[in-house]
Amino acid sequence: MLAPGSTIGILGVGQLGRMLASAAAKLGFRTAVYGPSADGSPAGQVAGRAVNGAYEDVDAVAAFAALCDAVTYEFENVPAETAAAVSSTGKLLAPNAKALEASQERLREKKLFRSLKIDTVDFWAIEAAQDLEHALPKAGRSILKTRQFGYDGKGQERLTGGEDAEAILSKLSGGPWILEQMASFDRELSQVAARSAHGEIAFFDLCENLHKDGILARSVIPAEVSNDIKQQAREAVRQILEKLDYIGVLTVEFFDVGGHLLANEMAPRVHNSGHHTLEACSVSQFEQHIRAVAGWPLRDPETVQPMEMLNLVGDEANEWSALAADPDVDITFYGKDEARPGRKMGHAVRPLRRS
Amino acid sequence: MLAPGSTIGILGVGQLGRMLASAAAKLGFRTAVYGPSADGSPAGQVAGRAVNGAYEDVDAVAAFAALCDAVTYEFENVPAETAAAVSSTGKLLAPNAKALEASQERLREKKLFRSLKIDTVDFWAIEAAQDLEHALPKAGRSILKTRQFGYDGKGQERLTGGEDAEAILSKLSGGPWILEQMASFDRELSQVAARSAHGEIAFFDLCENLHKDGILARSVIPAEVSNDIKQQAREAVRQILEKLDYIGVLTVEFFDVGGHLLANEMAPRVHNSGHHTLEACSVSQFEQHIRAVAGWPLRDPETVQPMEMLNLVGDEANEWSALAADPDVDITFYGKDEARPGRKMGHAVRPLRRS
Repeated sequence: MLAPGSTIGILGVGQLGRMLASAAAKLGFRTAVYGPSADGSPAGQVAGRAVNGAYEDVDAVAAFAALCDAVTYEFENVPAETAAAVSSTGKLLAPNAKALEASQERLREKKLFRSLKIDTVDFWAIEAAQDLEHALPKAGRSILKTRQFGYDGKGQERLTGGEDAEAILSKLSGGPWILEQMASFDRELSQVAARSAHGEIAFFDLCENLHKDGILARSVIPAEVSNDIKQQAREAVRQILEKLDYIGVLTVEFFDVGGHLLANEMAPRVHNSGHHTLEACSVSQFEQHIRAVAGWPLRDPETVQPMEMLNLVGDEANEWSALAADPDVDITFYGKDEARPGRKMGHAVRPLRRS
Repeated sequence: MLAPGSTIGILGVGQLGRMLASAAAKLGFRTAVYGPSADGSPAGQVAGRAVNGAYEDVDAVAAFAALCDAVTYEFENVPAETAAAVSSTGKLLAPNAKALEASQERLREKKLFRSLKIDTVDFWAIEAAQDLEHALPKAGRSILKTRQFGYDGKGQERLTGGEDAEAILSKLSGGPWILEQMASFDRELSQVAARSAHGEIAFFDLCENLHKDGILARSVIPAEVSNDIKQQAREAVRQILEKLDYIGVLTVEFFDVGGHLLANEMAPRVHNSGHHTLEACSVSQFEQHIRAVAGWPLRDPETVQPMEMLNLVGDEANEWSALAADPDVDITFYGKDEARPGRKMGHAVRPLRRS
């Protein structure tokens, strides 16, 4: 167990790093964040130390890790060499390199799910036009996705099955790809869970998520689900956590298709759909993650007050004064200067009123 | 109303400044703290900017205020010249200089209470031995206190009424003093409340406090009180807030003497006895204070989950690993290196179980 006063290092300087750093500080840890333009960044504004550097600069990353007692990250696209640079210093990297490898490439991720008998939509590996030509008629309504670096709906193309494969691939850069059959799902659920250094696992209640233009718009905790759905989610996530010798918070998104869960994707980190755990639960996803990274026991993440979270994206953040005046609303802003379209600026949390 | 992205300045670099800075950051404000050894201090570790300087260095204070959009403080002993240096820049100082003046001198504070018809124990102004000689027989069991800079029981001497005045004063430095009759009180209660820039007032539930060796050991929210006691506290605090044109959180400590409240002292700031508002209430004292300073509306500080707070003083902080393993305990540490005797290192909050 790391004692208060130890330093938790975070790779990444956005809002997730910011909320992780604040949670770590509450527990008495020193915090250091690393990334490009760390100074004055969302995370840099609240961290004890902000180190500017590229993720590919392995010497700088190793020097950063040497300042820390344990290192974690806010994004799954940490390069393998960067992870290795942390580990070369003998400092704990949590979650580990296996978790990064499994989650930063969509085909590998889906194959991991299948290897653990976790159901997913049907999918096809697409390297070239002829792969797509063969797969499309079988897939029908489907989504072609780059295997890496996609988020918030970027790098995706929705298809109906009748498209010309050559034409599609020529306009979509960033291959190889994965073609995923589109699920007719009733809703999307996310399971935020944590595994401690001692193998203890704790599950938050499932969240129900609503997207708009490919970006999470609203999340509700707890989702109203049957005990069976709850168990499907927990069993799947438990398997992934154990398979990966995972330490920290992991989030898995599921499609609920008539009561049957299909794993969609996972993130080896705290997740946008769990932000309201800070207001709703006896422990937040951020503290739970830091506890795991620090070798502390987890807490039981009971939902004390059902809540809904609304993301404030782009110029929705200009509504801040109305939100500040709403007595029910708990506001979080990320310290970003410019409300560019599609940019997550903050979120609002309020007690859930079921309709 | 200050928009997110504005800078809140805080004079003081201890744990109160730390928790204020974190609350400000959650709302999207930039934060800057000022004080001696601000770098690496409890507040400096979580603030966007930490400026080292003496409180008496009025030029440095004015330069600091110029970086900010509004300035507040974590301690009532901000010198009048320092407050004036902030105001000279045209930036809001909240709470204002009147609040500082009224609360940093015990005699003035008691006189303010009396002028507002708020009951207190009997007290006598002591400038010299002959004042004490006259007062002591009338006072009987009493406490002689320095009028300024006392905290956590420092600068106080308990008397029975029969002491030799000359001898007492010669061993107690820091006059002039105030002699306060000792109240036979049933318990100590504190009222944390806030007043917004628009005159709106919001009261937290009363806290019941238990001291050990002159230092707060335990505080419970909500105190179990009659409606009458609740109203006495609210009416007294409302009067003080309005009299002082107050903006921000004010804390007033009361003695409960058989259902009748006597005002003991006040602090123009967030207070140790309100730390658990962060876990117990729909809004914390820290956010409420920042909202007031930023010109935002207040929130209704409802107690959602009754909680008790235990201060971790000196080597009590060495119990951190047992506390970390207690599933019910919410831990806050202040980022201080050395657990010196009497030093507040952190606090533990847990759901209240009434005995």
